Amino acid sequence: MFSGAQISLYPMTDDFVDVITSALNALDPYRAQLRIETDDISTLLVGPPEVLFPAMRDLFSAAARSDKHCVLSATISRGCPGEPNDAICNSSHFDGPVVPFLERQTAALTAVQNATDMGVFSVAQLSLYVLGQGNHMDEICGCIDFLKQSGTFEKSKHFATKLSGDSGALFATVEQAFCRFGPPQGHVTIDLTVSANSPSAR
Amino acid sequence: MFSGAQISLYPMTDDFVDVITSALNALDPYRAQLRIETDDISTLLVGPPEVLFPAMRDLFSAAARSDKHCVLSATISRGCPGEPNDAICNSSHFDGPVVPFLERQTAALTAVQNATDMGVFSVAQLSLYVLGQGNHMDEICGCIDFLKQSGTFEKSKHFATKLSGDSGALFATVEQAFCRFGPPQGHVTIDLTVSANSPSAR
Repeated sequence: MFSGAQISLYPMTDDFVDVITSALNALDPYRAQLRIETDDISTLLVGPPEVLFPAMRDLFSAAARSDKHCVLSATISRGCPGEPNDAICNSSHFDGPVVPFLERQTAALTAVQNATDMGVFSVAQLSLYVLGQGNHMDEICGCIDFLKQSGTFEKSKHFATKLSGDSGALFATVEQAFCRFGPPQGHVTIDLTVSANSPSAR
Repeated sequence: MFSGAQISLYPMTDDFVDVITSALNALDPYRAQLRIETDDISTLLVGPPEVLFPAMRDLFSAAARSDKHCVLSATISRGCPGEPNDAICNSSHFDGPVVPFLERQTAALTAVQNATDMGVFSVAQLSLYVLGQGNHMDEICGCIDFLKQSGTFEKSKHFATKLSGDSGALFATVEQAFCRFGPPQGHVTIDLTVSANSPSAR
């Protein structure tokens, strides 16, 4: 199954080029496991979720450690019928059948509890889209139930759910939402924003 | 039908607060027709597409005229089954039945040709999601056919389509994609990025 993301990093500083290029070093441990292509609006990362989410976490956390207001925006997708399969995306996440929500939510909560502590406080906002089937709201609501228990839940908003906490827990939460909700072989996307060091009141 | 967007504006400059607050004046003509709520990660705009898209266009164009590298990111949604109806969203866009693709594409192209010229060159990237039905790729492919003919098409990418041109034509193109593809009363979302003044090569 094809999976990956179009990501962009926005440091709100005159030195945005330096912040971005310095943060890109954080991708080095993942480069052999990802296909990476950049243009003037986003960078494509193609690879399995277990590589993709830690890579995004480390990239964003490195930029946020500049103490500048930084945002990472990502369009994340798996199983799009229009995308060819690619061996680099092979993942153990999507082998099994659909299991009951309680089982999925319990496994997702355990993964978040075991997340790496990055030492970077962030806020995040995500919208999960389950495509190609009539009962998409059941899966979305099952995911929102998990988000509310995740320890990173901040509030429900129109069109999105807002999270806050350590960036390690946040990216683990979004990875679990992406992998465990929607059918294992289904077309699922997430529209994600992660932000650190904003001067605005929460 | 409930419709609106969570939007964020990212000026890549030390003066990002000033660029944002100055650009917000561009929303003044639309404020009576929108519900607007801001927190530290995004601003909610609730209203019909014929107000929402010109408002986003004018806000982004005002920020881009600072000549700083600026990005607007938006999660745009209509018809989500979980959202209550709201009279402020009343729109003539969604009254009719589903009409053939050729008819929709022709009307969409006419609207883009008649778009306001803003004098701001920009690039944009969008992903259209049609939810709650099995044939979602038919609607997405019908939309991509329109985008390719729109005069703003730059290239197809994994997970997204990239556009470039005047910001007036770009926001008109995205409005047509949002309003004319997916069933009139269906659940449709767009993940949108618009960028100006990037130092990166296109």
